[in-house]
Amino acid sequence: MQIEFDCIPCIYRQILEASRMVTSDKEVIKKILHEFARMIPEIKPEESAPEVTTRIQNYLKSVTGEIDPYSSFKEANIKMALEHYPLVEEIIEDSEEPLLGALVMSAMGNSIDAGVSLEVDITGNVERAINDGFKYNDYQLFQEKLTSCSYLLIIADNAGEAVFDKLLIKELGKYGINISYAVREKPVLNDVTLEEAQKIGIDEYCKIISSGCDTPGIILSRASREFMSTYSEADIIISKGQGNLEGLLGKKKPIFYLLKVKCQLIANKLGSGLKVGDFVFMLR
Amino acid sequence: MQIEFDCIPCIYRQILEASRMVTSDKEVIKKILHEFARMIPEIKPEESAPEVTTRIQNYLKSVTGEIDPYSSFKEANIKMALEHYPLVEEIIEDSEEPLLGALVMSAMGNSIDAGVSLEVDITGNVERAINDGFKYNDYQLFQEKLTSCSYLLIIADNAGEAVFDKLLIKELGKYGINISYAVREKPVLNDVTLEEAQKIGIDEYCKIISSGCDTPGIILSRASREFMSTYSEADIIISKGQGNLEGLLGKKKPIFYLLKVKCQLIANKLGSGLKVGDFVFMLR
Repeated sequence: MQIEFDCIPCIYRQILEASRMVTSDKEVIKKILHEFARMIPEIKPEESAPEVTTRIQNYLKSVTGEIDPYSSFKEANIKMALEHYPLVEEIIEDSEEPLLGALVMSAMGNSIDAGVSLEVDITGNVERAINDGFKYNDYQLFQEKLTSCSYLLIIADNAGEAVFDKLLIKELGKYGINISYAVREKPVLNDVTLEEAQKIGIDEYCKIISSGCDTPGIILSRASREFMSTYSEADIIISKGQGNLEGLLGKKKPIFYLLKVKCQLIANKLGSGLKVGDFVFMLR
Repeated sequence: MQIEFDCIPCIYRQILEASRMVTSDKEVIKKILHEFARMIPEIKPEESAPEVTTRIQNYLKSVTGEIDPYSSFKEANIKMALEHYPLVEEIIEDSEEPLLGALVMSAMGNSIDAGVSLEVDITGNVERAINDGFKYNDYQLFQEKLTSCSYLLIIADNAGEAVFDKLLIKELGKYGINISYAVREKPVLNDVTLEEAQKIGIDEYCKIISSGCDTPGIILSRASREFMSTYSEADIIISKGQGNLEGLLGKKKPIFYLLKVKCQLIANKLGSGLKVGDFVFMLR
């Protein structure tokens, strides 16, 4: 997906928030914001929003020397998500269809997204996910594909979210399939890294691999050889969140997109009358 | 109030929306957005957000030749507000304290604000205003001042909002005071101009004057002589909306601010635990 005019305020807000996480020096913050303003007219039409985000986030890192501005934020998100883990586990176990429940709760976890808002309301999102479920749901197609699936790839998104992905992977494990969980190569926004995925204990249930990307969303042309081999061999791919969707939508390989819709552009792109706030499980 | 880093995405969104109201030519839109990006590093610390808004909105006007980009939008807002006029009039008449009711409904009208969002939900805001009333309310102080008031100035904000201001002015008229209603000198965003205030029929109940400003918020150093004379002579001043507040907060003259809080910066500035979405009537 190419960047749209509407993406700029969002990327500006992100870099302002990230700057404030790292420094209270207004002159440093101003320098970073002015660099972003300078970048705007140079954005190429073929660039995606995650690519532009990475350029300015990397500038922040180079100016401040802080390689992981969201470090404390991610830690707090993981802590908060872990506090909700027993409740969400129970919800899934009590579901009529535990796998569907685990998919809904994994989409619910996608609400913990600093790319969109620093405010996190897990309890509210759990309630909403229970009441509303998926607004668009390709679960039946997923079940069909699962019967002949031996290898499944999940492309991860945010750090707090990964806590609930663990429950999905645990549930998928019951189907006796090999699973890989692909995380970012380097810290970017609040996306989950290898170290954090290991801390959460995702490696108890599947293999964690690096996507090779430092963009907040997979970009295949930047991906590692290991990732590309997994991507091409997988029988089913689940892509989590908007950032990955921006990099993958329109690719030949069918992909299940599992996310909470968080901006109008993505809602328009997915169609089907979807709105901001909806939970989605869509094969494309 | 000086502009903050956080104001930039909002001004960008406004100029993008205004550009789309005037043209569908992406190259023209890009030109305007790039000009705004170019302006960002040149913003002076002492400038206010309404001043920066005016500079880029004037650039849009010069590039496209359209002096009133929000013209149709304002017309639609006024139409929608007029449809709610009988209902709101009835609500005020049925209030235990009609003047307080009229003040609440005038703050409710402040929700029709393109500076914040193009979405307008008058019915929802009427309901909210009835249920919540003012979250901060200096009505008692207002009543006290009203007993010795012979001249009252209202500094107007948005076009649709002016329909409900008419009901407030009608109610204030019962106290036998002179009232002036100050509007923008030239069209800016969806703010009310002389012509629109006349169409709404505000001049049935009071005198309409021009502020002399083309900024979406009064700036005293740019105001007309007529406005400044009214401003200095008025026994009571009611300032509507965030834009006027940004220009006036901290001035010597006590002013009643009547608005819906629409951004976190303004909420922080007003204090008292106010939040985005609250209706406020505050003497400062």
